[in-house]
Amino acid sequence: MPTMPRHLLSAGDLTRGSAELILDTAERIDQAMAGREVRKLPTLRGRTVVNLFFEDSTRTRISFELAAKRLSADVINFSAKGSSVSKGESLKDTAWTLQAMGADAVVCRHSASGAPQQLSGWVDGHVINAGDGTHEHPTQALLDAFTLRRHLGRLDGRRIVVVGDVLHSRVARSNVLLLSTLGAQVTLVAPPTLVPVGVDAWPAQVSYDLDGALTGADAVMMLRVQRERMSGAFFPTEREYSRGYGLDERRRALLADDAIVMHPGPMNRGMEITPGVADGVNSVIVEQVANGVTVRMAVLYLLLSGEMDGGL
Amino acid sequence: MPTMPRHLLSAGDLTRGSAELILDTAERIDQAMAGREVRKLPTLRGRTVVNLFFEDSTRTRISFELAAKRLSADVINFSAKGSSVSKGESLKDTAWTLQAMGADAVVCRHSASGAPQQLSGWVDGHVINAGDGTHEHPTQALLDAFTLRRHLGRLDGRRIVVVGDVLHSRVARSNVLLLSTLGAQVTLVAPPTLVPVGVDAWPAQVSYDLDGALTGADAVMMLRVQRERMSGAFFPTEREYSRGYGLDERRRALLADDAIVMHPGPMNRGMEITPGVADGVNSVIVEQVANGVTVRMAVLYLLLSGEMDGGL
Amino acid sequence: MPTMPRHLLSAGDLTRGSAELILDTAERIDQAMAGREVRKLPTLRGRTVVNLFFEDSTRTRISFELAAKRLSADVINFSAKGSSVSKGESLKDTAWTLQAMGADAVVCRHSASGAPQQLSGWVDGHVINAGDGTHEHPTQALLDAFTLRRHLGRLDGRRIVVVGDVLHSRVARSNVLLLSTLGAQVTLVAPPTLVPVGVDAWPAQVSYDLDGALTGADAVMMLRVQRERMSGAFFPTEREYSRGYGLDERRRALLADDAIVMHPGPMNRGMEITPGVADGVNSVIVEQVANGVTVRMAVLYLLLSGEMDGGL
Repeated sequence: MPTMPRHLLSAGDLTRGSAELILDTAERIDQAMAGREVRKLPTLRGRTVVNLFFEDSTRTRISFELAAKRLSADVINFSAKGSSVSKGESLKDTAWTLQAMGADAVVCRHSASGAPQQLSGWVDGHVINAGDGTHEHPTQALLDAFTLRRHLGRLDGRRIVVVGDVLHSRVARSNVLLLSTLGAQVTLVAPPTLVPVGVDAWPAQVSYDLDGALTGADAVMMLRVQRERMSGAFFPTEREYSRGYGLDERRRALLADDAIVMHPGPMNRGMEITPGVADGVNSVIVEQVANGVTVRMAVLYLLLSGEMDGGL
Repeated sequence: MPTMPRHLLSAGDLTRGSAELILDTAERIDQAMAGREVRKLPTLRGRTVVNLFFEDSTRTRISFELAAKRLSADVINFSAKGSSVSKGESLKDTAWTLQAMGADAVVCRHSASGAPQQLSGWVDGHVINAGDGTHEHPTQALLDAFTLRRHLGRLDGRRIVVVGDVLHSRVARSNVLLLSTLGAQVTLVAPPTLVPVGVDAWPAQVSYDLDGALTGADAVMMLRVQRERMSGAFFPTEREYSRGYGLDERRRALLADDAIVMHPGPMNRGMEITPGVADGVNSVIVEQVANGVTVRMAVLYLLLSGEMDGGL
Repeated sequence: MPTMPRHLLSAGDLTRGSAELILDTAERIDQAMAGREVRKLPTLRGRTVVNLFFEDSTRTRISFELAAKRLSADVINFSAKGSSVSKGESLKDTAWTLQAMGADAVVCRHSASGAPQQLSGWVDGHVINAGDGTHEHPTQALLDAFTLRRHLGRLDGRRIVVVGDVLHSRVARSNVLLLSTLGAQVTLVAPPTLVPVGVDAWPAQVSYDLDGALTGADAVMMLRVQRERMSGAFFPTEREYSRGYGLDERRRALLADDAIVMHPGPMNRGMEITPGVADGVNSVIVEQVANGVTVRMAVLYLLLSGEMDGGL
């Protein structure tokens, strides 16, 4: 029987078995919720989930908050942005405080890659990485995989193209790791200056021919251009970027017939994706958000309830 | 049987029947709560109410948060002030996110008139306008009507005077619409520079004679002077304003014997109202705050439970 | 039978009987929680606890929030920092608002000494001082006493040394009052410039000989150096402070064999305490944090449930 790691720090920590356990549990939760008058499961009553956010991310915070509340956990929001608890020793003291107060899970978003990993060394509760620097965002990859599976069935051999600012993208890294574990073939397409060093070691192909990569692909995942992480020299104008790496209707038409269009949000409409494609029939971007709550419920359920057989 | 609109965007959307349904439901909720050991009704368990506040308003946010929690709903606070989600396309993406996450109601405060209306076009959940620009604040009008009814009984033919900065006041506009629907006669008194263009079309009289308007009136509603919305040219000194349009003991004595003094808060004591009158026996300002929670419970109950017969 | 004051404003308001009632209730709560599958007591369902914080203090706010939620109360967080509600009349209006909304307890942190006391004159709910200026922090003293009792048993005649910036420390003041009520002998050691005027009236000894005071003591409580409250002239360098008043391994070894090392957090590691001592075997600093939640549950329980016999 598959087992869960103690913490969810990296998509790379998940075996195919544990990843599928999460996705299957999410499906069961979705069914259990659909059949209920009261859209809440009592599973985590009396448990405390702390949202420890060192970076703002309303969307991700709300998604975890809703997931925890729908499992009847108590949620404490701890926005540490701008406070003194942002580095080194301080993170340790914060960890000990949360530990002492009896946090059963700590959902951590941090600008420093590796911060959730450090945290996991200091607390008994379960740590969930909600995005660390340019490193990983494993629940985003899980919700993407969940969305892909719903539309494509099993992912073995499916061709998925990830496009854009791979260099700064924790979403890209986590997706490459998880999707390859699930048997998909991932192709990364990025401007040459936005390809990370060492990408050769990733379980993915790299291409500089966007049109070629899209042709016949089963899904395309557009990355958010993170202007705030770029210096001017690296960065083309909005128009150049859009022409070279944006998804418009012409490019979308190159995909396979049932292919889906994905974006982790929030979108720069008109830059990495045109409004028409973002809101078009193949777009599953809104579904991704909905699936985020379900998948995070599955992760919290599996980590905190100790149930591995999905005894919902 | 009266029915509720799908959203509560404007006091003008309420028929006399639906307005009275809300006020009657609020009375029943008040009675139901009074008789309970545990001051909470289970009605909205499993429902999610999102407080989407693009402007700070601790008082209104807390009132809605308490109302939702006393109906056992889960509450998500989303303070969007200063974040990137404040205009155009972004509001749409925020709406879709909340929609996807399954928000049953979105309580929206926004500096732009019409934002809640736009929002209601994008979500399936019920939108409640918690104040939009200088436009409307319908739950404030409802709590004012509830307070007036408690003291005056039926409002038909009652004379209510609204005094102050009508130009910038969403409270004045919503009250004029609701109180006239409920049969009251509303008189607006404002400095000439603070009377809105087009006020002739409002179902209210305009007077520049404060003493005359107050004489024998059943209630006076003092508006907050919103200095932050005014340019210097329009604006008299505090002392001039107070002399011309402030409510002091002399003016209060002009009212009918059982008349009540109201203010939506927070007050500029010494400006639009003297401390003595604010805290005097005729003042119901603290009651208004208490009634705000009850009336908002009624609105959430009617919109979300789908029960129109008040089956509490 | 001991009774509780209506509000918890000062450690000095507690008789020995009422202080021991709180500590005994905390022990019973701890046992009741340990034996439960669901770590939550239903005692305060339907009650509302408002966290009214005019100063940031994530640690204290979370501790009270957890305590209230574990008793099944609804919690409203009201961070008033930077808002207009910070002085005089405004505090009164805020109080009335909370009162009108039916707050059963208001947990108040304020930069002005005496603010919670003022607040208690304006509301029917129970006010708990969560730290006011340089005045008091009674629940900190209660959690410290709880921790001391667990390690030392009865406190009669026990020697407890409080070291550091006594002048600015509400923790020191509250601890001196409570610990002396419980029969302990408290010695204060501070740099001469950081001893408050009027300390002669405190039920504590003052010493300028740190090594002497520590020798054979049962516990040492290191205070946080609050650099933000000091002007340059008063203040030694970090190195001078550490040499003169910091707790290092040599000094710790002067204590009695079973003595404990305490700190209210957050620590300036390397300044008032070395990392080795902070994390050493005698340190109970993490326990203090855990006990904070339990003791605050006891305070909320006793104030709000009206049960004095600990009928948990």
